[in-house]
Amino acid sequence: MSDYYSPVARQVDGAPMRGQSRVRAVARPHPEKRSVDLGRLSGHHLGYLIRRAQIWIFQDFIRTLAEVNIRPAQYSVLLVIEANVGLSQSALARTLGIERARLVHLLDGLEARNMVQRARSKHDKRSHTLTLTARGRSALGRIKVLADEHEQRLAQKVGVPNHKKLLRLLAAFARG
Amino acid sequence: MSDYYSPVARQVDGAPMRGQSRVRAVARPHPEKRSVDLGRLSGHHLGYLIRRAQIWIFQDFIRTLAEVNIRPAQYSVLLVIEANVGLSQSALARTLGIERARLVHLLDGLEARNMVQRARSKHDKRSHTLTLTARGRSALGRIKVLADEHEQRLAQKVGVPNHKKLLRLLAAFARG
Repeated sequence: MSDYYSPVARQVDGAPMRGQSRVRAVARPHPEKRSVDLGRLSGHHLGYLIRRAQIWIFQDFIRTLAEVNIRPAQYSVLLVIEANVGLSQSALARTLGIERARLVHLLDGLEARNMVQRARSKHDKRSHTLTLTARGRSALGRIKVLADEHEQRLAQKVGVPNHKKLLRLLAAFARG
Repeated sequence: MSDYYSPVARQVDGAPMRGQSRVRAVARPHPEKRSVDLGRLSGHHLGYLIRRAQIWIFQDFIRTLAEVNIRPAQYSVLLVIEANVGLSQSALARTLGIERARLVHLLDGLEARNMVQRARSKHDKRSHTLTLTARGRSALGRIKVLADEHEQRLAQKVGVPNHKKLLRLLAAFARG
């Protein structure tokens, strides 16, 4: 989905952009230039602010997890596979709302890195069940440590009580 | 930027997806299937929740503004041009953090619809200044009414005080 109020994506400083770089370079702000009036965009529209926040957060995530080369979508997939024994590929797609073709591509990558294993389901031959490999489980340990560092940075940025408030307030949208 | 915790994008019911459809179809949830454990993804990671919220909000925006065929990025561009007389294309790109090629494409579309006009800058021949056409100004009236309807729906969803809190809390990320 590449539509937004603020179609940003500044190159993350110092982050090695391996594989397909989806965070593209854009001109840096020139602080000497006069500031531009955002009109009613700022302070009025949640969509605008949420898109800016989402980009900020994802860039920090990507930078923080650069050493393990894990991006947000991969992280979510690993966590949900870990938490659900015998999870089917279709249940994972439904849960995270991932488009099927995109999930197949994402799982191909994790399988190639020997982190995830696909097996034919015993109950339904057309379906695949997913498990973490030993290597995947082991890698996830370090990944979680880094994801927690990232989360702590967010809490520092907005303040710990505000971070908790945001988690609580935004949950309304995840419920559908 | 198509990387995320939750790479969703469900087809918006009833929304005519004109032009390039960036919101793609995905299988609908099967309510009879057992629910999947999100693990530490939910209630712990702001990035996951913010991505789900952003998708929910953008889908509602697209659906609500379907009759005027305006998407979030186009809306933000129209507002910022309106609010800044003689705005240059490069200042607009900087302000919204839009990648230059993407902005050119977006402005081409608005120019083809006779909503925006580009002119050579008097001060810098290599630069373009942007203004709304009479048609653009007139269309923006209706567009704002619909965008306000959308915003009211968000306020209803989370509650008016929570909507205000979210606007306030998320501003931290828009400041960089």
